[in-house]
Amino acid sequence: MQERREHVVIIGGGFGGLYAARQLKNAPVDITLIDRRNHHLFQPLLYQVATGALSPADIATPLRGLLKNQANARVLLGEVVGFDLANRQVILSDGEVGYDTLIVAAGAGNNYFGKREWASSAPSLKTLEDATTIRRRILSAFETAERLDNPEAARAWLTFAIVGGGPTGVEMAGALAEIAHETFKHEFRNINTADARIVLVQSGERLLPTYPPELSASAAAALERLGVEVVTGARVTDVNAEGVTLSRGDVSEFLPARTVLWTAGVKASPLGKALARATGAALDRSGRISVEPDLTLPGHPEIFVVGDMATFTHQTGQPLPGVAQVAIQQGRYAGRLIARRLRSKSLPPFRYWDKGNLATIGRGAAVADLGRLRFSGLIAWLLWVGIHLMYQVELENKVLVFVQWLWNAVTRGRSALLITNLELPASARSSYDTGTWPQVS
Amino acid sequence: MQERREHVVIIGGGFGGLYAARQLKNAPVDITLIDRRNHHLFQPLLYQVATGALSPADIATPLRGLLKNQANARVLLGEVVGFDLANRQVILSDGEVGYDTLIVAAGAGNNYFGKREWASSAPSLKTLEDATTIRRRILSAFETAERLDNPEAARAWLTFAIVGGGPTGVEMAGALAEIAHETFKHEFRNINTADARIVLVQSGERLLPTYPPELSASAAAALERLGVEVVTGARVTDVNAEGVTLSRGDVSEFLPARTVLWTAGVKASPLGKALARATGAALDRSGRISVEPDLTLPGHPEIFVVGDMATFTHQTGQPLPGVAQVAIQQGRYAGRLIARRLRSKSLPPFRYWDKGNLATIGRGAAVADLGRLRFSGLIAWLLWVGIHLMYQVELENKVLVFVQWLWNAVTRGRSALLITNLELPASARSSYDTGTWPQVS
Repeated sequence: MQERREHVVIIGGGFGGLYAARQLKNAPVDITLIDRRNHHLFQPLLYQVATGALSPADIATPLRGLLKNQANARVLLGEVVGFDLANRQVILSDGEVGYDTLIVAAGAGNNYFGKREWASSAPSLKTLEDATTIRRRILSAFETAERLDNPEAARAWLTFAIVGGGPTGVEMAGALAEIAHETFKHEFRNINTADARIVLVQSGERLLPTYPPELSASAAAALERLGVEVVTGARVTDVNAEGVTLSRGDVSEFLPARTVLWTAGVKASPLGKALARATGAALDRSGRISVEPDLTLPGHPEIFVVGDMATFTHQTGQPLPGVAQVAIQQGRYAGRLIARRLRSKSLPPFRYWDKGNLATIGRGAAVADLGRLRFSGLIAWLLWVGIHLMYQVELENKVLVFVQWLWNAVTRGRSALLITNLELPASARSSYDTGTWPQVS
Repeated sequence: MQERREHVVIIGGGFGGLYAARQLKNAPVDITLIDRRNHHLFQPLLYQVATGALSPADIATPLRGLLKNQANARVLLGEVVGFDLANRQVILSDGEVGYDTLIVAAGAGNNYFGKREWASSAPSLKTLEDATTIRRRILSAFETAERLDNPEAARAWLTFAIVGGGPTGVEMAGALAEIAHETFKHEFRNINTADARIVLVQSGERLLPTYPPELSASAAAALERLGVEVVTGARVTDVNAEGVTLSRGDVSEFLPARTVLWTAGVKASPLGKALARATGAALDRSGRISVEPDLTLPGHPEIFVVGDMATFTHQTGQPLPGVAQVAIQQGRYAGRLIARRLRSKSLPPFRYWDKGNLATIGRGAAVADLGRLRFSGLIAWLLWVGIHLMYQVELENKVLVFVQWLWNAVTRGRSALLITNLELPASARSSYDTGTWPQVS
């Protein structure tokens, strides 16, 4: 008879959860990885799907395939809705799963700071569906402008407002500028796509606030060379289908922009709130839960929280940033500590090793903050390319992304400029079975 | 002042419309290509998107990019709803476009033979959205079976019924068998995916009825070797979410199958019916319009109908098949004839040059009907691979498809096994802003 082994349940197949599972590959445990999606998503490249440079499958890898050769792991496609900590159970929408040790790595979603109603006018970028929605909106905006006779109306369709000057906002703005100035050159007949306005709105005084000021300045300069209008120190006080209202102090201005993209903030999974309520752990403004030096919750050494859901302040007094590297290192730490405990050993507290930060602006332009070494331009961009290929979790994705990037670089084109799920009038469904609507006079 | 040139309006950016536009590249005409989608779709490989071997962008190419270097052509994203033949106008849902010459190449949709209500249980495969929907259903069926304790319920989720034994049905059945027996080997823990039943239902006496009987037999044998159950001579008399009812004569049998795919028939765009009513041209059972020997409509030499919308019987007495080659050759013919007319010349009647037909069954297996030369197996499959790369309309798609096929062949995997747009419970939206639902006991 098989011995009952410790059951480790991992919630979330992002960087934190996946690296935790892999770390436990040779440990004498049974692992259940629960995700409500069937794929790991390489979020740092999601903006490239939203701007038609890559296809969804290039940056998403099915979790089952990733773990198929790890015999001690199973994958469960399911929706976690809560916990029964006393009985050590995870509650799913359609059942429950018991655990001995729990790793919660459910990540973060977008944050409209209470203005949830803005979401329909200003979509944000967290999932593959978000990315294809944004791609459709961007491409449809150019198509609509091409059809309009009214120049003012066309101008609003050719104005793109990006709210939030962090890495995602900077990357989206740069990519949109390339689409307007390069990719779509010669493709339209009635509009000049180079007339498109791309406005990047940042509430703070500089872009990329987590980077050193000189890199923020480099990024702003590089974006302006690409034709992006960088607006700092302006808050967004209203968003609707017609555009955004920007306010500085008491002065407000309405910017007509038919496409508004939201990259202004993230909020941790509400599972964090549930855990905080049950364990007494603190939550920060973004809904992230404070973890102990070993990434567990107070009084619950059997529960780890890693990645974007956790706030870890024991190293510098400041929370660690919500980036892939933190999630990877925390996931590995949790896995390692679980394995050590089985041999009645422990580990020193978690320490984040900051390998540096990179943000890309466009082809050949990026900024790199490697501690004392800070630089921008082509070298930073090549470093960005190399690292983003390296951290794809599967060789296949590395190959596919590399081929597409090479192709896009050579042709100055984009591989995946598709409008899908366009909401056509009811008469335009793919089946013609009803077949009565065309009118002939 | 610029001379007013003849205005050629082309409806549809499929093979027929696109090749007509390209044929007119150097003719002194202005071309407007109208499509309700922004991309040309390589339909023969759509089943590979539906089965996760390729990504949508691999087989779809934006029309603007394809025509950007053709100065006499513009692309209009629009929905044609009818015609005003007397005033030579195409009626769009939001305007109209005048023409001197019209090429109608709006293709065909699916055909449920009046049982439109079956569509929700048995989706068909005509658009990229159809393909990603079918992909989601197939992958979700395996995921659901993995979660179920009840073996009988799991069995229904592991049963896939494909209705229609034409090329698409054969290709889908073969690909599904490969997914169940190869791709998913070792990926699930509770089910053995090789137990999946793939049932291909054909109402006629043999698969691939337009092919020679010996190739139909080869295809059936190859599918059975892959584990597909081939059922011939059985009509589908009901479809619902639980499965399909198959009838032979008076004997009916219910097959519990949670995934049913419909490949049983096509019906021409309803624009054909509108044109027939206005011109007196005949319509066949599939809604295709009878064209003159020069592909125009009776009494309307300025209107061409090409591809899947047209039925051309002047060559053999039988209608030409609804395949890409017919559309390509007809599109080219229409373009050539329009250019000749401008020089007051004409052309002999259209003649289809049948280069042969190929249908693939799985990796290394296909059937080829090249007139007197008929064969099956690896050689037929290699031919199929070469031709399907050759007819991709852009080098980029050739490269992307080739790389993915090579990868899939080496790893016996599939590149794009993604579940997207999964309908999750309301609590599972990508934003966590509401943040109240998790319950902790």
